[in-house]
Amino acid sequence: MIPVYHTHMANEFEYIRWLRDQTPAHARVTIGPGDDCAAIALPDREMLITTDMLMEGVDYVLAEAGPRRIGRKAMSVNLSDIAAMAGRPVAAVVSVALPQGVSIAEELYRGLREVADEFRVPIVGGDTNSWKGGLVINVTVYGEVAPGQAVRRNGACPGDWIFVTGPLGGSILGHHLDFLPRIPEAQRLQANGPIHAMIDISDGFTADLSHILQESRCGAMIFGAQIPLSAAAHTCALQSGRSALDHALTDGEDFELIVVVGPEVGSRWVQQPPIPSLVEVGRIVPTGLFIDRGEGAGPQPLASGGWEHAW
Amino acid sequence: MIPVYHTHMANEFEYIRWLRDQTPAHARVTIGPGDDCAAIALPDREMLITTDMLMEGVDYVLAEAGPRRIGRKAMSVNLSDIAAMAGRPVAAVVSVALPQGVSIAEELYRGLREVADEFRVPIVGGDTNSWKGGLVINVTVYGEVAPGQAVRRNGACPGDWIFVTGPLGGSILGHHLDFLPRIPEAQRLQANGPIHAMIDISDGFTADLSHILQESRCGAMIFGAQIPLSAAAHTCALQSGRSALDHALTDGEDFELIVVVGPEVGSRWVQQPPIPSLVEVGRIVPTGLFIDRGEGAGPQPLASGGWEHAW
Repeated sequence: MIPVYHTHMANEFEYIRWLRDQTPAHARVTIGPGDDCAAIALPDREMLITTDMLMEGVDYVLAEAGPRRIGRKAMSVNLSDIAAMAGRPVAAVVSVALPQGVSIAEELYRGLREVADEFRVPIVGGDTNSWKGGLVINVTVYGEVAPGQAVRRNGACPGDWIFVTGPLGGSILGHHLDFLPRIPEAQRLQANGPIHAMIDISDGFTADLSHILQESRCGAMIFGAQIPLSAAAHTCALQSGRSALDHALTDGEDFELIVVVGPEVGSRWVQQPPIPSLVEVGRIVPTGLFIDRGEGAGPQPLASGGWEHAW
Repeated sequence: MIPVYHTHMANEFEYIRWLRDQTPAHARVTIGPGDDCAAIALPDREMLITTDMLMEGVDYVLAEAGPRRIGRKAMSVNLSDIAAMAGRPVAAVVSVALPQGVSIAEELYRGLREVADEFRVPIVGGDTNSWKGGLVINVTVYGEVAPGQAVRRNGACPGDWIFVTGPLGGSILGHHLDFLPRIPEAQRLQANGPIHAMIDISDGFTADLSHILQESRCGAMIFGAQIPLSAAAHTCALQSGRSALDHALTDGEDFELIVVVGPEVGSRWVQQPPIPSLVEVGRIVPTGLFIDRGEGAGPQPLASGGWEHAW
């Protein structure tokens, strides 16, 4: 029997808020819990750290995805967090709990390495275990930025323009295993910025935009007709009876970036996009979250929604 | 059904060897896979990284240990790896897969923080998940050393003296959950060194000493009568019918340090131990692994044994 410890927290986000309250300020910690990466001050740079754990039945089904794609995903989700801070990835460590009786260690590692090699990230160490449970894989990536150059979630201002780096929705059909983290895209955008706020889409466009809005204490107006819809969003819509736009707004794990910039940069980007897939999708406003679906009804409130771990 | 991927590797250590062969040299990676920590070059220091994953039923039983002690252990095993390189811990990130339906997140975090606070290590971020499986917790710790000052496994030479930092054996009775990592002890020893090679005892004294011997391409003679026996080693001996010395040599998770130094330093330490619990337990020899049990039979071969994850 497992003893029950009482908690007043209903879900992951409440727990993260509690963790942040529990975390005292520390001289060298320039970014603590609650952003895509933490940051530690070094004399001539900031060190970024991000960690993500993927689990059988939650983030993949081993029998369907296979170990190589799972390895790719485990590396990619972490590199995506480095991208979301406009950082350069430097090194990774990998821990795995392998289910007993299946020999997947090599294929898993090949998947990890394929993505790591693509971004020239050495896998410098790890912890390899086996157990009676399902496959669990944890990757921690260390990255770097010039001092003060990490792009956070809290820098959006009313009047800013909102962009996304690619089409959204229906990731569950395969993209969530096969995406490439937007590392070079984020570098290129930052070089053509400055970027005020950025996040990668893991919980869903609306949910992750809401993280920016909450941290930046402002609101947003989304141009519904401009949201780029993936082919998979249309496929999902046929199956679910919901609209492709609804899938694009709420489905998780697109791993595109939401990028917020000032109006001068925004209008320049609309004229000359620094990366081909960049799309303008809205404006930062003082408060609230609204969408204009372009059907003549004008702005409507939009629920922040999205995926979270409840317990 | 889970597809089976073929492998020729029988166990964890074989897999780690394979991983090391797969890992190309990288300009900034000063220590790659296969030591207690990896190390990355920075202009004025080396960054140490270590990661450890603990799993229900392998590293603890939640219903017996409780979440707070598991949190303590998860932080301590990582800090122990930093200690084994004579490093200073700087920051930690934590990932958890929480079993659904039990509210252990806060107690787990309190355990993590108790140990982290004791060594002034901020927990700067993490990843909190829930799933249908058992509790899995992964901690990654970042530490630092002055350039070239990380103590590795490969520096032992014939004629060197071997020490341990405290009593061994019977950790399963509780020490494996409640130990404190030897961070200040390692610093103090290094300041009174130099230390030629060091490792923390996770797999068992003989197994971990063998890691040093393998990396340093040499052997050792153990003074059996000088191995410090914990009270728990004696208790285990009563239950198992094996000797307390046998438990001290082979039981895992003591998390004391095996420390190898030159004869000048060794004789100085025997005269004036820099830390009170330090005990001399043997000598490095050119080849082989032997023990003199002090029973008049002279040196006998010793099997390297110890815990490893088979699959």
